[in-house]
Amino acid sequence: MSRVVVVEFLDGNHPRWGRAPTLVLHGLILLSAIAIAVETVPGLPPRMVSALNRFEAFILLLFVTEYILRLTCSPQPLRYAFSVWGIIDLLSCVPAIALLEPEWQAFRSLRLLRLLKLFHTSVALDRLGRALYHVRGELFLFGILSAFMLYVSAVGIYFFEHAAQPEAFASIPQSLWWAVASFTTVGYGDLYPITMGGRLFASIVLFIGLGIVAVPSAIITAALMDTKGDGAGDTSEQKPETTKKGDQNETS
Amino acid sequence: MSRVVVVEFLDGNHPRWGRAPTLVLHGLILLSAIAIAVETVPGLPPRMVSALNRFEAFILLLFVTEYILRLTCSPQPLRYAFSVWGIIDLLSCVPAIALLEPEWQAFRSLRLLRLLKLFHTSVALDRLGRALYHVRGELFLFGILSAFMLYVSAVGIYFFEHAAQPEAFASIPQSLWWAVASFTTVGYGDLYPITMGGRLFASIVLFIGLGIVAVPSAIITAALMDTKGDGAGDTSEQKPETTKKGDQNETS
Amino acid sequence: MSRVVVVEFLDGNHPRWGRAPTLVLHGLILLSAIAIAVETVPGLPPRMVSALNRFEAFILLLFVTEYILRLTCSPQPLRYAFSVWGIIDLLSCVPAIALLEPEWQAFRSLRLLRLLKLFHTSVALDRLGRALYHVRGELFLFGILSAFMLYVSAVGIYFFEHAAQPEAFASIPQSLWWAVASFTTVGYGDLYPITMGGRLFASIVLFIGLGIVAVPSAIITAALMDTKGDGAGDTSEQKPETTKKGDQNETS
Amino acid sequence: MSRVVVVEFLDGNHPRWGRAPTLVLHGLILLSAIAIAVETVPGLPPRMVSALNRFEAFILLLFVTEYILRLTCSPQPLRYAFSVWGIIDLLSCVPAIALLEPEWQAFRSLRLLRLLKLFHTSVALDRLGRALYHVRGELFLFGILSAFMLYVSAVGIYFFEHAAQPEAFASIPQSLWWAVASFTTVGYGDLYPITMGGRLFASIVLFIGLGIVAVPSAIITAALMDTKGDGAGDTSEQKPETTKKGDQNETS
Repeated sequence: MSRVVVVEFLDGNHPRWGRAPTLVLHGLILLSAIAIAVETVPGLPPRMVSALNRFEAFILLLFVTEYILRLTCSPQPLRYAFSVWGIIDLLSCVPAIALLEPEWQAFRSLRLLRLLKLFHTSVALDRLGRALYHVRGELFLFGILSAFMLYVSAVGIYFFEHAAQPEAFASIPQSLWWAVASFTTVGYGDLYPITMGGRLFASIVLFIGLGIVAVPSAIITAALMDTKGDGAGDTSEQKPETTKKGDQNETS
Repeated sequence: MSRVVVVEFLDGNHPRWGRAPTLVLHGLILLSAIAIAVETVPGLPPRMVSALNRFEAFILLLFVTEYILRLTCSPQPLRYAFSVWGIIDLLSCVPAIALLEPEWQAFRSLRLLRLLKLFHTSVALDRLGRALYHVRGELFLFGILSAFMLYVSAVGIYFFEHAAQPEAFASIPQSLWWAVASFTTVGYGDLYPITMGGRLFASIVLFIGLGIVAVPSAIITAALMDTKGDGAGDTSEQKPETTKKGDQNETS
Repeated sequence: MSRVVVVEFLDGNHPRWGRAPTLVLHGLILLSAIAIAVETVPGLPPRMVSALNRFEAFILLLFVTEYILRLTCSPQPLRYAFSVWGIIDLLSCVPAIALLEPEWQAFRSLRLLRLLKLFHTSVALDRLGRALYHVRGELFLFGILSAFMLYVSAVGIYFFEHAAQPEAFASIPQSLWWAVASFTTVGYGDLYPITMGGRLFASIVLFIGLGIVAVPSAIITAALMDTKGDGAGDTSEQKPETTKKGDQNETS
Repeated sequence: MSRVVVVEFLDGNHPRWGRAPTLVLHGLILLSAIAIAVETVPGLPPRMVSALNRFEAFILLLFVTEYILRLTCSPQPLRYAFSVWGIIDLLSCVPAIALLEPEWQAFRSLRLLRLLKLFHTSVALDRLGRALYHVRGELFLFGILSAFMLYVSAVGIYFFEHAAQPEAFASIPQSLWWAVASFTTVGYGDLYPITMGGRLFASIVLFIGLGIVAVPSAIITAALMDTKGDGAGDTSEQKPETTKKGDQNETS
């Protein structure tokens, strides 16, 4: 089996297997993401814990194999090794150390990086990136206005509520948390004004501020929807695999 | 009375009765939906319980009668029996078994299927379906981005809050519930970060993520609004049931 | 002083006083609205209570005077008496009975009707009405879809949560309150799912349903914004007062 | 060093230093905003408190120096002194009194005014102002409708809930707080209806009102987005300070 065939197989461009290897890999990564979540559930039966550990070891073995194959079979190994995806592939293998050296458990958190591999051949992240880039000026402007609004609201509510609720609104940083929870309209209910002045102030800033704080989110949403049409004329989206043939060149 | 007249009567196409039978049936289904809800209220007086049961029996009798009439009077009984609406009509009759055999109470939950009959001659569900089909690509793309955002937020908040609130943020699946309640901006207040790191992390992902998680809802809304004009020039809406011509003509 | 002059004065069309009488009346109605709210505050000092009562008596005297003047000075008294605004003017005077006969306190709630007088010469309510009329078909369609979504969500959450929280999710009508609070994203936090099944179900219906339940609000908002331009070409908005000259004709 | 050079330096127009002085000043103001927030955290170590105080003294010294320099070097000192920014610069210096006379602590709250200096050379606040001015008519109209909706909802919920929750819904002003928290969809969960009538009323007004109360925010958002393109062709944005030519040139 020639080297080029191996890379084609891994990239999902193999004439016979097609996208199958990519789909299997993506399925395993999703399963692994679920496994990482399930692992944290307290009181799991020991058999399940050991099954999850074996699955994790299998996934890591797969990633190490994939990385070695890609590195040895690529026509330009160094170019791959120092590309963004090459580094992500490498870092995804690092948690394997924790299997061999149990005291290196801290590296296990790097397992989450493998989720990024899902976006390797996907256009979603690319599209998000382009959308954000397109509206960076807008986002910056309204990000500042939002931050200003949040800060002023936090200072104001601290001024009104600190005396009445010295623990809930203990400081301005804590009041900022109230501002974030209120202006995103999440409203957990852990902090809320109880004085008449505080409620009046909160009502006023909420009615003014919701319109401003909602803008960055609306900008992202609008930009994401707008980039829909852009993709059609952008060859990097229609043929996301062709440019990676041979050596995994990345199109920016 | 000829067979065709019966079907015309049931479908609301009868020259004399017009839409009256359909409207009466829909009214009864709505009343039945209210009855199903009221039935669950604890401490109902026995007289009301027996009244609700009698109403339920009457509704089921009506559905069984309708099904038998449709089946015997349809020019193509098999075609009706295996059409989507034929199967829904049949399943709507199944809870009648629970009236005869009290131990088959489990079938009573099938009563909810009768709500679907409300959409038989309606364009609302059809429109929703077309709208969702139209934006299936968009929904898939942003559904994945949203799921990614929710997962990463849940993992992050678990990392920050697990030590401080070992019961509230007991595991990543539990933290996912926090992420859902926060990113939909519902914010029940059963779970919220209390550490400074957790609040900072939550603030950042909320401001980034609200824009992404809100996209699928916005896509559905936009698609639903867009299908407004489409319907006029779209023959599939004006004659949604052309394939059933002869046995189940629908009035648009 | 001729009769026509009195009506012109009351309607704010008097050549010398202009809109001044209308503005004074509106100011008094707003003050009265605040007074009605303040009246309910527990533990008010007796002096304030009597001041509020005197203010209320003054307002009622003013309304009675206005009604008598309008009735006697209108060229077509009957037409005024049976117009929408004539009836509102009359009902606004009814709470005066409670001043004379203390046991007729129930009529005091009619005082809120005087708020409608604020919209007498205003285009806001008219615009809202036109906007709602314009999208009545849309509102009906998505109102039904929303109601269906809320009902199905309530039934589902009742099914999942009733066993775990027999008091919180005691019945389907109670679960409907959860659905309303969740789908409007208010999320008071009085009711929320705690079982894994209930949370999964809630997550799914929330992500699907927010897009549907938000549509009626979005339709109203869009219609309100759209009617902006309509007004320019609509003489009833540009000259809202001219048609009322003399006898208070209402334009629909 | 000539006077003009000093003003150029302070305004960020100096041929050699460019925007550096402005950026340093803005950075210090942001740091100072963080310091004001951190100052309120209870239980700070004494060393940190004294460090924050020294930083505050340094900032004030800087502002006093800047104000004196601007006043003495400006070609038209009086014009600067009575311009909006001149007054803000002066008021930003006032908290310095609290350093000299410890009993004048109340002036410390004026420190927040220094945040406005961030918008001196920025177009963000200007843009917000123009956007609000552009839609002032709309905002007024829907502000009134929203206020009406909030008031009616508060009166209604008070009517339904006062008997069941005499403390939570003690008065109409308190019920207004419920209305604000609900219609903004924040929903803290400190106040919510528990009676069936109250919940039904709340459901109805929420579904009607969310569409109206959301309009002012949507108007601000839309206006902010619309002013994007306007700025390019609008000379008032490119040269926002033309009236101060000579003493306070701004770079756009």
